[in-house]
Amino acid sequence: MTQKIKAQGGVITKEMAIVAREEEVSSEWLREDIASGRIVIPANRNHKGLHPIGIGEGLRIKVNTNLGTSSDHIDLEEELKKLKVSIQAGTDTVMDLSTGGDLEAIRREILKSASIPLGTVPIYQAAVEAARRKKALANMMAEGLFEVIERQAEDGVDFMTVHCGVTRSPLERLRRDHRLMGVVSRGGSLLIEWMIYTDKENPLYEQFDRLLEIAKKYDVTLSLGDGLRPGCLADATDRPQVEETIILGELTERAWAEGVQVMIEGPGHVPLDQIEANVLLEKRLCKGAPFYVLGPLVTDITPGYDHIACAIGGAIAGKAGADFLCYVTPSEHLRLPSIDDVKEGVIATRIAAHAADLARGNKRAFQMDLEMSKARKEFDWEKQIELSIDPVKAKLYHEGGKSTEKDRCTMCGEFCAIKKVKDFFQDY
Amino acid sequence: MTQKIKAQGGVITKEMAIVAREEEVSSEWLREDIASGRIVIPANRNHKGLHPIGIGEGLRIKVNTNLGTSSDHIDLEEELKKLKVSIQAGTDTVMDLSTGGDLEAIRREILKSASIPLGTVPIYQAAVEAARRKKALANMMAEGLFEVIERQAEDGVDFMTVHCGVTRSPLERLRRDHRLMGVVSRGGSLLIEWMIYTDKENPLYEQFDRLLEIAKKYDVTLSLGDGLRPGCLADATDRPQVEETIILGELTERAWAEGVQVMIEGPGHVPLDQIEANVLLEKRLCKGAPFYVLGPLVTDITPGYDHIACAIGGAIAGKAGADFLCYVTPSEHLRLPSIDDVKEGVIATRIAAHAADLARGNKRAFQMDLEMSKARKEFDWEKQIELSIDPVKAKLYHEGGKSTEKDRCTMCGEFCAIKKVKDFFQDY
Repeated sequence: MTQKIKAQGGVITKEMAIVAREEEVSSEWLREDIASGRIVIPANRNHKGLHPIGIGEGLRIKVNTNLGTSSDHIDLEEELKKLKVSIQAGTDTVMDLSTGGDLEAIRREILKSASIPLGTVPIYQAAVEAARRKKALANMMAEGLFEVIERQAEDGVDFMTVHCGVTRSPLERLRRDHRLMGVVSRGGSLLIEWMIYTDKENPLYEQFDRLLEIAKKYDVTLSLGDGLRPGCLADATDRPQVEETIILGELTERAWAEGVQVMIEGPGHVPLDQIEANVLLEKRLCKGAPFYVLGPLVTDITPGYDHIACAIGGAIAGKAGADFLCYVTPSEHLRLPSIDDVKEGVIATRIAAHAADLARGNKRAFQMDLEMSKARKEFDWEKQIELSIDPVKAKLYHEGGKSTEKDRCTMCGEFCAIKKVKDFFQDY
Repeated sequence: MTQKIKAQGGVITKEMAIVAREEEVSSEWLREDIASGRIVIPANRNHKGLHPIGIGEGLRIKVNTNLGTSSDHIDLEEELKKLKVSIQAGTDTVMDLSTGGDLEAIRREILKSASIPLGTVPIYQAAVEAARRKKALANMMAEGLFEVIERQAEDGVDFMTVHCGVTRSPLERLRRDHRLMGVVSRGGSLLIEWMIYTDKENPLYEQFDRLLEIAKKYDVTLSLGDGLRPGCLADATDRPQVEETIILGELTERAWAEGVQVMIEGPGHVPLDQIEANVLLEKRLCKGAPFYVLGPLVTDITPGYDHIACAIGGAIAGKAGADFLCYVTPSEHLRLPSIDDVKEGVIATRIAAHAADLARGNKRAFQMDLEMSKARKEFDWEKQIELSIDPVKAKLYHEGGKSTEKDRCTMCGEFCAIKKVKDFFQDY
């Protein structure tokens, strides 16, 4: 029984109770939205020690951190450090996207260390295993993929990206409607490769029921991937992307009919003025299923600063209704992130999520800003640091600029407006 | 004769020709918008060697860097280094906000080194000089302030922040409508102090004609300051702020009648969902005068990362019509910025401006992103680095993650989607 099936049956699970309490929402309201599919709680029944969170409409916007090795860079200790740093920095979930080294061992270590929900993209492991067995991907993919999905589900993975919407129809459109950047989704490109070699339909689409069976058995939340998401601003909101979203919407309803929890993944690279429309499209075409956006990046020219371009896009997407923001680090498009990059990425994405929470009227978010402003007015530096999104950095900066006087900082020195106004307005 | 008066007379000045060429707009169109006041070219006739820029509707959004000493931190060499770094990072203008040390010397050194427009807030110098003469601010302010304005104008300052809208009426509202943060504008608080001690009206308002005379003589662009801007999200868009904007709109028309160029300064701290309304208000109440926003910060809890909170706010403001973004650095609210902070602040604000330019349909901005995407598709790393907003950082990151293969990076290793799709789609 999944969280969704229980919710539909009127049951408030332990997980729902925790989420309702932490989000300060009524558990009955939460149950209804889980039943309808507008909220998910990614909580694999085999994930021991998981602290559940909810993702969707009316809840705090969540942040995901991507970790993982690549064939060019394999270091399990480093990945575990990244996991630790991302949790300290306040990530809500983590995805293990490893494609290098002992994938099973890496995933199990991360699962053991993570009380937050863990996501994966199973096709990566399927492709790596196919390559290692020196068999053509064409023969391996379909069976190998379902095997890996089942194995990962059994291990306790809470949500999985499955690119079920990369079907022959949008693929034909992709061929016809020339796009600048082609395909930038790794999972999407693997499926397309398989589809071209075998001349068959996407197995994740054709055998969607088989996928649902596994997801239902372990309560894996399906994160329906956007394998055809555009990879640059010039390609944004094009026909292959939109048709894929339509297909994901149809699959969402099939999943819901089986009681399986679903999120929808979205772009990617989107100009600022198209973000709202992208969110609206997803919410309409996928009947309110939670929207998980990868950024979006609002410009292509910021390698080294893509976390800032994504903070802009993520905040606007969140305000428009996106529920879950995948972080991007300063090293996006350049290299695997370092440990520092991971921290920078999480913080930048949390800023975006929080700014959007404020704009969505989240009362707890508003309270946080109010407390900070009060501490600022009182020159209570200790409290300001404590309330900062990253107290470590705030403290470091404050100590680097201490004023000669307690109740001001080097920024304005003696010309501190707050101090001045307090001096001559008695009630301020 | 100011740029505006010349434009009204049908003359296309040397400055207008340069701006038109660089922005790729027609010089006649530009002239019309300068005549109407929707665009300004801050270019003091005494600023030798100035490279002019235009600010306003239909042009690329510009970025300003604040420099300057405070009484707690005085180091001219450091300020000159900050100036250099900010220009290298791509700032369009710079403001000298010094309040510590030899203010005349600092300003003249910066002017000598800056071919970009320089702005100041003359009341800072007036207040510092009053304090040094050990006279009460109350006696000094009005005369001293106009003396300083004239002296700075003669030196070649291109634009000046003058808080002319802090009048008795919105001040009364400020007393009545209790605000959490009071006043956070340094200039605003100095004027309020003077108004309370003397029980007189704001001299910059009362003697606005005298101000216009100086501005007209040297062609100083007036940046009508928002001395009553809110200092936290909870206070955003309140009555004192909005009444001040109304007054600034009235003063704008008086300035225009004298041929003086005007910009309007705006907040500050604004929740994401109120930014568009703030821009609309300014554009309506001030009849399309260029809007110069200080951020805005979309949350209060990000000391150490305020440049990111401001990049979010600045991008949204720019998309909505703001023309000029004042940078914010990671050290905002904590200390005077370091040299590194200055660079971080300029780049973050440039990202916001560029993202908004793209959303506003700026063709040159779109072309930059297109070139980057093409270089990305071709695995032309050299070109990607060259086209990056900060080639130094992009290069550093790329070199820290070189793959074993030329045509991929450590991010995806062998599972590079772009490479894969190029392999199996011949026309990609």
